[in-house]
Amino acid sequence: MMVGGKQWRTVWMPAGERVVRVIDQRELPWRFVTEELRSVDDVVRAIRDMHVRGAGCIGATAACGMWLARETGEDLIAAAARLESARPTAVNLKWAVQRMLADAGCRATAEAIVEEDIEACRQIGEHGLELIQRMAATKKAEGAINILTHCNAGWLAFVDIGSATAPIYAAHAAGIPIHVWVDETRPRNQGSRLTAWELAQEGVPHTVIVDNAGGRLMQCGQVDFVITGADRVTRRGDVANKIGTYLKALAAHANAIPFYVALPSSTIDWSICDGLREIPIETRAADEVLWIDGPDEAGQTHRVRLAAAPTTAVNAAFDVTPAHLVTGLITERGVCAAGEAALSQLFGRRSNDGSKSSVL
Amino acid sequence: MMVGGKQWRTVWMPAGERVVRVIDQRELPWRFVTEELRSVDDVVRAIRDMHVRGAGCIGATAACGMWLARETGEDLIAAAARLESARPTAVNLKWAVQRMLADAGCRATAEAIVEEDIEACRQIGEHGLELIQRMAATKKAEGAINILTHCNAGWLAFVDIGSATAPIYAAHAAGIPIHVWVDETRPRNQGSRLTAWELAQEGVPHTVIVDNAGGRLMQCGQVDFVITGADRVTRRGDVANKIGTYLKALAAHANAIPFYVALPSSTIDWSICDGLREIPIETRAADEVLWIDGPDEAGQTHRVRLAAAPTTAVNAAFDVTPAHLVTGLITERGVCAAGEAALSQLFGRRSNDGSKSSVL
Repeated sequence: MMVGGKQWRTVWMPAGERVVRVIDQRELPWRFVTEELRSVDDVVRAIRDMHVRGAGCIGATAACGMWLARETGEDLIAAAARLESARPTAVNLKWAVQRMLADAGCRATAEAIVEEDIEACRQIGEHGLELIQRMAATKKAEGAINILTHCNAGWLAFVDIGSATAPIYAAHAAGIPIHVWVDETRPRNQGSRLTAWELAQEGVPHTVIVDNAGGRLMQCGQVDFVITGADRVTRRGDVANKIGTYLKALAAHANAIPFYVALPSSTIDWSICDGLREIPIETRAADEVLWIDGPDEAGQTHRVRLAAAPTTAVNAAFDVTPAHLVTGLITERGVCAAGEAALSQLFGRRSNDGSKSSVL
Repeated sequence: MMVGGKQWRTVWMPAGERVVRVIDQRELPWRFVTEELRSVDDVVRAIRDMHVRGAGCIGATAACGMWLARETGEDLIAAAARLESARPTAVNLKWAVQRMLADAGCRATAEAIVEEDIEACRQIGEHGLELIQRMAATKKAEGAINILTHCNAGWLAFVDIGSATAPIYAAHAAGIPIHVWVDETRPRNQGSRLTAWELAQEGVPHTVIVDNAGGRLMQCGQVDFVITGADRVTRRGDVANKIGTYLKALAAHANAIPFYVALPSSTIDWSICDGLREIPIETRAADEVLWIDGPDEAGQTHRVRLAAAPTTAVNAAFDVTPAHLVTGLITERGVCAAGEAALSQLFGRRSNDGSKSSVL
């Protein structure tokens, strides 16, 4: 996407150098900073400490990390294990690392993973655009299509374009009036920091809301459509995504509002069925809840407390939305129901591919 | 309740003085500060700018304001109008002001309103304790009863004891092991700031969570019980409460977890039925979403941005939970279903008392 009149990706391998470059997303929206990664250590740290984040982006970065492992002469199996364990929930990480391992850390494979991520997001945009066009054609009231999204499944979460944002950018480019309700997405505020920044860069009308507000907006008819991303989707269509997604899915269901999840197929974990029981959910530091940072009016950054001692916090990073609350999955191959039959049909998988369950 | 070894109320009229004193809740949990209110202007400002907040507390403070109006020779009808319009959603404010107007600003009536608020909370605690005792008796697993609450319906939201916290304090005093999940309650963080502080003062085990987290905790069997307060309850049992309450009610319903609302009858608006259509919902400043303040490690307070320009926000302060999601209402007269028949029976009201609807 464009930043300051120039085309950027979240991760790339400059020609002729033994280096991976990423946008350091911890600095956004206050500063646009890129960072050089020169070793597997650097890549593990960048993923674990969330310089890069988002299912597609950490998958692509880890792929580039496997190339660095080869270039720097590290043991590929050990590098794969370290990269895979940098974060537990998004399955794209494991998928990309295993693919790189099979190809012995080959640069061309990393480049393919990067390019396929972009192409999948572009196709998700096309399929999602059709849904938005249908919604626009049938909408009774005047005005923009109101889409609510949670967290950041934008281009910053992938290599480019994004998953949940792809249909939004496509609709905006097609001249369909769009307005996005951006959940701030506590505790790390990826919505107010990253999604709002992305949408502002592209000139897409948007409004930040606290995570508490979406239910009321839905009750009041101010949401036409929910689109979120996913960190892992089971073969039966259960969706692990940023904590709080489940609450929005419940509210959408209660108010008969379409709830779509946009994802490339690298996010599907064909080996598991029951998301609530089988998807490992990352627990992060309590301090992410108890402290927050940002710039003051003069632009100076401070880190301030949100609760007094001795109060503590717990901080699960993801939750699981059961398939029955999901209207549809928007993938690079098209839109399908969140269920085993529809997913298997779309991707030509038999239900026992790499799984514990029996053949359909 | 006790603070620093001394008994406090949120609002009181010191003997022999023409002054109302309140705890300035904007300073909590960082500093415990009280404030003198000497005129209706002072009281309007304290309510509007949330030096005091919470349904019972603003009702009691407004009652004291009507006594100040009488003492300072202000026109009582004009004072009533200004006090009532200080905040739109909590009906206790109007209820208290109208009662004071009927008694011409009489100090004894203000004292009665204050004492009745305390007594109602005490009775809510007794009735809620029975629910918790029954839960404790049937709970299969070892360990504490896990209660989730949203916002602050603690003693700071009333004159003393609180509504949602009354059963918690009663159970804690009775030796029942209790653990409270405290929703931080964006954007003003009344949970992490006020409820957590209250519970810490009383030694009640508690953990702050982001508002996004409660759904997952419920899915995982880590919530036995939800208790919230209310700002206005319709005769049919619809509940206006802090924004985000509705999302927790949906999640409790989906996971078969009891969802109780604790309120004194001064919070019931007998004149309306349909909460979503009839309860006015306050819209507050976007800056409450876009900025936040707190102390840094050195204790110095800073106000920092959470989103970059040009992003804006909207900020509705309350939402409405429909009666069918509410397991029961815990009132000073006992626990009843959230419905017209049960409420009318408990309070001996006929359905046309002061209302637009027809006799049952």
